[in-house]
Parts: sequence; C-alpha cells; structure tokens
Amino acid sequence: MIDFQHILNTIVEEISSEPDKGIVATYIPELAKVDCTKFGISLLDNNAKLYSSGEANEMFSIQSISKVLSLSMAFRILGNDLWNRVGVEPSGDPFNHLSLLEMENGIPRNPLINAGAIVIADILVTQLKNPKQEFLEYIRKIANDNSINYDESVAKSEKETGFRNYAAAYLIKSFGNLKNDVEEVLDFYFHQCSLRMSCEQLVTIFYIFSNRGECLQNHRYLDLNQVKRINAIMLTSGFYDEAGEFAFEVGLPGKSGVGGGIVALLPNKFCVATWSPGLNKKGNSKLGMLALEKLTTTTALSIF
Amino acid sequence: MIDFQHILNTIVEEISSEPDKGIVATYIPELAKVDCTKFGISLLDNNAKLYSSGEANEMFSIQSISKVLSLSMAFRILGNDLWNRVGVEPSGDPFNHLSLLEMENGIPRNPLINAGAIVIADILVTQLKNPKQEFLEYIRKIANDNSINYDESVAKSEKETGFRNYAAAYLIKSFGNLKNDVEEVLDFYFHQCSLRMSCEQLVTIFYIFSNRGECLQNHRYLDLNQVKRINAIMLTSGFYDEAGEFAFEVGLPGKSGVGGGIVALLPNKFCVATWSPGLNKKGNSKLGMLALEKLTTTTALSIF
Amino acid sequence: MIDFQHILNTIVEEISSEPDKGIVATYIPELAKVDCTKFGISLLDNNAKLYSSGEANEMFSIQSISKVLSLSMAFRILGNDLWNRVGVEPSGDPFNHLSLLEMENGIPRNPLINAGAIVIADILVTQLKNPKQEFLEYIRKIANDNSINYDESVAKSEKETGFRNYAAAYLIKSFGNLKNDVEEVLDFYFHQCSLRMSCEQLVTIFYIFSNRGECLQNHRYLDLNQVKRINAIMLTSGFYDEAGEFAFEVGLPGKSGVGGGIVALLPNKFCVATWSPGLNKKGNSKLGMLALEKLTTTTALSIF
Amino acid sequence: MIDFQHILNTIVEEISSEPDKGIVATYIPELAKVDCTKFGISLLDNNAKLYSSGEANEMFSIQSISKVLSLSMAFRILGNDLWNRVGVEPSGDPFNHLSLLEMENGIPRNPLINAGAIVIADILVTQLKNPKQEFLEYIRKIANDNSINYDESVAKSEKETGFRNYAAAYLIKSFGNLKNDVEEVLDFYFHQCSLRMSCEQLVTIFYIFSNRGECLQNHRYLDLNQVKRINAIMLTSGFYDEAGEFAFEVGLPGKSGVGGGIVALLPNKFCVATWSPGLNKKGNSKLGMLALEKLTTTTALSIF
Repeated sequence: MIDFQHILNTIVEEISSEPDKGIVATYIPELAKVDCTKFGISLLDNNAKLYSSGEANEMFSIQSISKVLSLSMAFRILGNDLWNRVGVEPSGDPFNHLSLLEMENGIPRNPLINAGAIVIADILVTQLKNPKQEFLEYIRKIANDNSINYDESVAKSEKETGFRNYAAAYLIKSFGNLKNDVEEVLDFYFHQCSLRMSCEQLVTIFYIFSNRGECLQNHRYLDLNQVKRINAIMLTSGFYDEAGEFAFEVGLPGKSGVGGGIVALLPNKFCVATWSPGLNKKGNSKLGMLALEKLTTTTALSIF
Repeated sequence: MIDFQHILNTIVEEISSEPDKGIVATYIPELAKVDCTKFGISLLDNNAKLYSSGEANEMFSIQSISKVLSLSMAFRILGNDLWNRVGVEPSGDPFNHLSLLEMENGIPRNPLINAGAIVIADILVTQLKNPKQEFLEYIRKIANDNSINYDESVAKSEKETGFRNYAAAYLIKSFGNLKNDVEEVLDFYFHQCSLRMSCEQLVTIFYIFSNRGECLQNHRYLDLNQVKRINAIMLTSGFYDEAGEFAFEVGLPGKSGVGGGIVALLPNKFCVATWSPGLNKKGNSKLGMLALEKLTTTTALSIF
Repeated sequence: MIDFQHILNTIVEEISSEPDKGIVATYIPELAKVDCTKFGISLLDNNAKLYSSGEANEMFSIQSISKVLSLSMAFRILGNDLWNRVGVEPSGDPFNHLSLLEMENGIPRNPLINAGAIVIADILVTQLKNPKQEFLEYIRKIANDNSINYDESVAKSEKETGFRNYAAAYLIKSFGNLKNDVEEVLDFYFHQCSLRMSCEQLVTIFYIFSNRGECLQNHRYLDLNQVKRINAIMLTSGFYDEAGEFAFEVGLPGKSGVGGGIVALLPNKFCVATWSPGLNKKGNSKLGMLALEKLTTTTALSIF
Repeated sequence: MIDFQHILNTIVEEISSEPDKGIVATYIPELAKVDCTKFGISLLDNNAKLYSSGEANEMFSIQSISKVLSLSMAFRILGNDLWNRVGVEPSGDPFNHLSLLEMENGIPRNPLINAGAIVIADILVTQLKNPKQEFLEYIRKIANDNSINYDESVAKSEKETGFRNYAAAYLIKSFGNLKNDVEEVLDFYFHQCSLRMSCEQLVTIFYIFSNRGECLQNHRYLDLNQVKRINAIMLTSGFYDEAGEFAFEVGLPGKSGVGGGIVALLPNKFCVATWSPGLNKKGNSKLGMLALEKLTTTTALSIF
C-alpha cells in the first residue's frame, strides 16, 4: 500500500530546496502581494483519508479553479443543453485570446477558458435568484464548511483591472451568447474567482470528481456521465496552453489558477491539491506542477 | 468478469441497424472506392486474449493511425530531443490548417497533426538508412507479422493529390524545421499512411501502448514514460478537432484515420480497434466512434 | 468645361431606375427606419460652386464618416504624435474584427476602423474640456452652420446595442492604449457617429480636404502634409474591406458610413457627397458607390 | 516649370550623405552580394523627356516590381475575368503570410503579394505557348530594348531557397486555384522576378502606367480602365505592409522589389524609378523611399 503521508512529506522537503519558485502574477494587483516561498499540499484518497503537508491550511485565491465548480453547478441545472452555449474542445491558444471567439461566433471553445467561464457565469445569473449567494452555498455544502467565502478586495481589484474579461464578455454579448447585463455577469464571475480556500478545503470539494459525483457526506452532485465529461474537459483544457504538457508530466485531469493553486485527481483513487503562488511562463504554479509530477512518478499512478 | 466477446457481438449487431453510416472520404481518390456498410472490431486484453467481431480481418488503409507508430519509432531513437522539433499541445484547429504553423515558426503543435507527422517523417528519413524498409520492418516486428505492407496505389494517389501536405512541408522547410528534401520526406510520409492492416493486426501492434511498452512477444519497445507521453498526446490530439468530444464520449486515448480505422486503449487493460469507412463531419469514423462509446459505456471502463 | 449640374441630374435620373437599392443596416435599430429609395448628391468644386441633385438637403446619420472629422481634430492637436497611438496601414479585414488588434498589442491599424476611431475619441476626451460640445463647435465652425447637431436617439440606440465597440474599447484598454473610462470614451464616440447632416453640409465640411486644408471662409484647419496624410488614409482604408474596390471603381479618397452616406474628393478639384441608405454586402451605400463611379467615369476625373 | 534634372541631382547629393542606408536582403543568396552604397534615379515625364542621376544605368534584379508587369500581361489577355482568380484588396499582412490565403479559400488578396503573383504566373503559363520567352518579348517590346534579360543565377538561387513560395503555390493548388504543375509555374515566377534592368529601363516600361496605357512608341498596351485599376492596386498594395506609409510619405502609386528597386508614377505627369539595395525593416529600399519622398515634397506633386 502507498504511504501517501510519507510521499507528501518528501515532496514538501524536496520542493523547499528548489531554487526557481516562479513569479507571482501581477496582473491582478491584489494577488501580487503573496509570498512565493510558500507551499502546501493535500491529498484525499477514496477511503476518505486526508493527508497534508506544508501550508495545506493556508487560504489562497482559487481563481480559475472555480471555473470547474461553476461548470458543475450549471451542468447540474441545464444538463446537456449546456453544450449549446459552450464547446468541449481544447482552445489551442493562451487563456485570454479573443480571436477564436470571434471566428467561432461567440461560442467559447470550452468552459475552462475565461470566455467559456463567463458564459457559464451568465447561465448561473439567469438560473439563480441570488447567484453569488447560492453559488457560495453550493460550494459550502459540498465542502460541509460554512467558513468558505469570497474575498471582496480581490473581486474589486479584478473588476477595476479586468479589461480583457470585459472585452470578452462584450464580444460574446455581440454574438447573442450572453443574456444578462455584462456588469452583473462579471460581478458574479469576479466573485467566483475570488473564492478563498486552503488545499484541504479544495480536495474536500473536488472529491466529488474523483468519487463519481458524491461528496464526503455521500450526497450526489453529479451523475457518472457528468463527472466523466468534466474530468475529460479538465484533462484537455485545464492548463491553458500547457494542457498537453500537464497531461504528460502529471497524467491527471486537473485545473490551475493564477493564485497558485492546482487541483488534480485520479478517478476512483484520490484527489490532490497544491498551492504555491510562483507561476511559470504559461501561468501555472511552478512548484505545484513539479510536486504533482513527483507524486505521479513516485506512485506510478496516472490515467495513462 | 467482463465478457468482451459478447459485448463486441452486441455492438456489431446494433451497429448494423444504424441508418447513418457517414460518408467515405473522397479527397484521396484511392480511398473513395470502399464500401461504407462494412464494420469490424477487435479487442486485445492485457491477458493477451483477442476478441473479434464483424469484419475484423479485412485490411484497410490505416492512414493517420500510422502517425502514432512513426512517432513511437522516432521517440525510441531521439528520446526527448524529439520535442525540440514538435510540440505536445492540442492544436485547437482542424487537422490541415497552416496558420498556426506560421505563427509558431514552423514548430508543429503536436506529432499527430499532419504538419507534426511530416516533421517526424523528416526525422526518420534522417535517422534511417532505408527509411521505408526499416519502418516497415519495425511494424512487422511489433506485429510479429511479415505480411503487413504498404499500398503503393494509395501512396501514389496521395502523392498526386496531397497538395496541402506539400504546402505544409515547404512551409516547415522555410522555417528550417525540415532537414531533407520535401519529395523524399513526403514519399516516406505517404507510404507510412498507406499501410494496410486489419483490426486484428492493429490491436496486436497498439498493444505496446496498453501494455506499458511491451509487445505480445514480451519485447520492450518503449519505456513507461514514453508510453505515458504518447498516450497523453493521443488523448489530447488524436481526433483532429474532435479530441475533446472523443475524450468525453469514449474516454480513452486513441487515434483515427480517414481510412475509417480507429484504435484506442485503456492502459493496463485492453487495446481496441474498429473499422468502418464512413466518416462524420470531423473526419472520424462514424460507426467506430459509436462502437467505442458503446464499449466504454457498457463496461464502465474509461480513464476518467 | 465640365457641366457638373447636368452630370448630377443625369446620375440621379439613372439611379432612380436602378432595381437593386441595397439593404438598410439594421444593427443600429434607430437606423433601420429609413426609406431606402431615397438618393441625394452634392458636389462642391474648388471655385466654391455648389451643385446638388435629388434629396441633397435631407439630413441623415453620418456615422463612420465622422471618423475623418474626429481624426482631423486630433491631428490638429497632437500632430504626428498621433501615430504613436494608431497606425496608417489598411486593415485587410472587415471593419469590426478584433483579432488584428489583439495580435498588434492594442494599436489599431488605422484611424478609420472602429478600434482606431475609438482611440481617436479617447485622445479627444483627454485633450478637450467638454469633448462633445467642442467637437460639435469644431464641425459647426468648419461648416459655418450652427444648426448641425447630434441625434441623441441614435447615440442612445448605439450605446444600448454597440457591444462590439465596447469589446474593442476594453481590449484596447487592456493594452493600455485607452486612457479614459470606456463609458466616457464611447459616449463621445457614439455621439460623434450620430451627427446628422445633409449632402450639402457634408461637402461644405469635407471641402477642407479637397482645398488643401482651408474651408470656404478661408480659415486654415490643416496644413498640406496633414491633408495629404488624411486623404491617403481615406484612399487605403475608407471603405472597410472594399477599399481596393472603391479605389478602382471610383478612384477617389473617400469615406462611407452605415447611414448610407459617402463623401469623396479629388484634391484641388472638388468634393462630392452622396446619400442613399441601402447598403451592399460590404456595408457601403449601394447607389452611392454606383453614382460616384458614374461621376468619375463620365468626367474621366480621378486620382489615377 | 519644374527643373527635374536639378531636383534629381539634389536628391542624389543629399542621399549620398545619408548615414543609414538600410540592409541588403539576404534571403535570396544571390542578391546578398550587392553593394548597398549605390543609388540611382530616373524620371520620364509625359513629354517623353528622360532625366537621370546617380547610377541610373546600373542593372539590378527587379524582383517584385515584375509583378505589375505580369499582371498587365494577364489583364490584357483575360480582361476582368482575371478577378475571379485574385482579389483587389490590400492584404493587411506582411508579404509572405499564408493564413489569409487559407481563410479565403485560395483566392489571394491581390496580385502584388507573392501568392497573387503566383496565380498570375499560373494564368500566363496556361495562356502562353512559351511563357518565359513570350513574357520576355512583351517586356522587350514595351521597352523597345532587346537587351533586357532574365538572370539565370538569381532564378536558380530563388528556386533552391524559395520554400515559402512553394508552400504558397501548393496551398493555392489544394484549393484548385492553380491549374498547372507547381514546378512549372514557379519556374516562370522565379524567372520573371529575376529580370535585370536599370532605372532608365524601368521608367521606359512603367511609362505605360503614367501615360494612360501607351508606350513611348505610341503602342497601346492597356485601356484607360485597366491602367486605372493597376494604378489603384499599386497604391493600396504595392509596398507590402508599408503601403499606407508610402501612400502618405510619397503619395504615388508604385511598387518595390527586394532587389532595392522602386518604381512610382503620377498619372499623366511622370514615371520615376530609384535603385538602392539597402532595405528598411518592411523590405522596401530605404534610400529609394527617402528619395521619392523628397521628390514629391519638393515638387508638391502627388495624387493627394
């Protein structure tokens, strides 16, 4: 049997001596303040056993990782009708390019690029009475943890500087694929991205994707087909234009955020989250990628 | 235990009553002659047990499926130096677009799009003394079957009409990423694509990718890391701009060809091949996709 | 000597029997209400003689024609520093594509595409105390006509539906090439485009471009080099992706608007304006293009 | 009256002290050998008076300037049917990009970009019995000069290194817009580009474009409409992605070549040619652009 605790401890130790820890994202001013030497990792196996090492309880801004969660909520509500509004193919482009959107008439390539997540946000704004509140409750319920919350200062910081997201939203709206007011949709979107969590909280939530749709309290959130689709999308599109690289180096479906978090999972086996705010050139956590590669190499566990 | 023989038989039966069998590719004149009602399927599990149903012994042109095989041979020879010449990211574009190639200075996005496979062909032409002969011997040896051969009339047909492949090759050469004469490289490439095999032969060969690099004769062709990378590339890039769709619907790494073949695999479990020459709009075998979806849905076996 | 009055009358007569009068633009709802059988033409020669025929005094929304006027005002103020903010090359793309903007880091190709005109609007918002008022006064003074005004209902209509302009503005802002608030810049831009004029008023104003920078009251607005540059930009970029076609068919620098107006000029000879709200597929007035072609063919006057 | 001889002499003198003479093109090896301090200029006015200064009789490779000549020959033969094969709009892209070609189904934007000139070459190969010989005779006849010839070593040099032109030709062929064998078409194209002439010979030939279609021997080659269209295309598309800049700085229709030649003309007034092999970043002769700007500024003669 695999001794996950020992493996995580070893990874944390090895990581601490890594000279190049990447560079903290500066385009969201509020995120630029974080200390890039920090590193935490948590793993929750499918026997519901939690292993942690390093700063696994420190809260950070989950940013784009939240796109998987909003997707799961919209998918529950709309079912496969969702795919009329957003595609399922990798974008083959950095995360913020509008060109494809223009060529493809306002249908974003997939729900994990910004444009796609904005369409998902629009769907939730349409479907929910109090979108921000209900989305937060959805997350809290999966986590069984009412302390999880938005970070208003990060949401405000993004709102004041997120011009490219405004550009994407208006472009989608010009094609008729955004039904609500842009300000309202982006207010939801920026809040969603500002969610603060620790690695331990993240694995507790993403457990539903490694556990066939059920959370630790055995409540079912997604059916098997929905989990399969979301995992497939994470694998092909979860890491901006480094998805192929991650698929090889790590070999797990996952999602990263510019706040330095990464979450990944092996279906029916475990869910893992890392946090380290220094990013590589493609916008993914440098030490997080390294740690996950060590994990799957050491354990020889991957989907491939 | 899963009764694969029964499942394959059921699939063949269900498939036979499918009204829409897709459309045979016409852009390679020699391929346009095939009867689109044909269907075959073979599965080789990791106990080396072979199951077949339908026309699993009929030979067809494997076309783009051969890209995985040439990649594996080049990867054996060059190791990771290979990735200086070709990327590992999904292209996010139909299989024949040159625009990306131009923007990215002649480095194809991945080895499974035409441009990437042409670079791989160039590598083999450089590395091998008698490229066509040695590549054929490599395939025959993995398959333990000396009857496998090129189809000269198909190779000739492609040579006379494959203008877009010439365009890609010359564009790559203009960036210095093609070292040999274009005619020589494409002669190899068109031959490689013209390989004729049956579903049974295909699974015997692709068994190395589901069996951690070893063939049925227990000869090792690739190490674990190489197999993992090739499987990852198949998953993210094996189905043109339908890779995301295939990842969800089927949930296996695989590769299709315009000749109507598809091969897919579940690491450590099985390798499967289908053949039906009618294609869907994205250029993948219509009945083959359907059959594989039935297979993974029925068995609940997939990587996700 | 050329009898312009006779020529204009003949053109109006011929135009009236033209079966295909194009289609009125509908994307700005307020513009969709106009009657597409209307046609007017005015010509002001460099002896200050005015000739008109048809509905040359009917007011219409000048829309993109205003881009030349805002450009002239910004050029007066900033001089050649202007060209650090916007290019002078034809865009080679339809008038509303954002892709180029993205590839070229937020520097629009030229000041006559929407993105470029928005940057010009931003410059005027920075440079002027009361931008809308001062721009209107600038136009009124050139025209020597205080009746010229904005059409608030058209400006409002564009504001409510001009999502693509919002997308362009935010994209430019994300690259740092828009200094003011997007709402404020677009409020100016939508007002500028809503200016209402007749053909007679238009030629009175554009006379400065055929008369080496001086208006009918002999006041100098631009120096010779500035006029030359603006005329050159009108020729290469004044007709969206039909600039080349217009250069050949008509052979004059000019600018069209989706309101159905076109203004064109032969340096040192005359300035001409047409109005007919039906547009061709490229967004230029169908009858206006035809009328101007007749004019330059009949008179054998063009820059080529 | 303008003293052209004095003006040309002054320009040559001023040019000689210019410190930055640009950089000689190296991508055609045979062209890289030329001395970049050389400069020549010739002007032929519409009274058939020839003025020259500097090295106006030195022969150089006219390269892309030849595209206007092959266009004129094809236009004579096919008339307006020509425009079914090639467009008339500026490309908005550097001279060698294939992306547009791909998006627009193999119809090049205009006949002065490489792709367009290759289609023109294909037309001539179809229409002429001995294309290279007949094209040469056409040029010699316009020039009334049988000494004009191809430079076989330059043609050969381009053939061996012009991979991007091969890529363009094959891409066009894949769309069915190239009727002959690629090798044959490019053999013609590379020869056409290798034509060697002096500035004096160039103005003698391009005189037909400033003289309404007639050469110095009063033979008519093109009708007025054809001349107008070709001049319009030169203005909008004659200088790669510097067409707008040239239209402003110089204000004349014209065409440049990587051999360092530029030819330009003012309809009904004069035709002018310069030669200096050092190029600016956009691929146009640095001193040539400067000289022509001086010419039109000093004389205040331009189309604008």
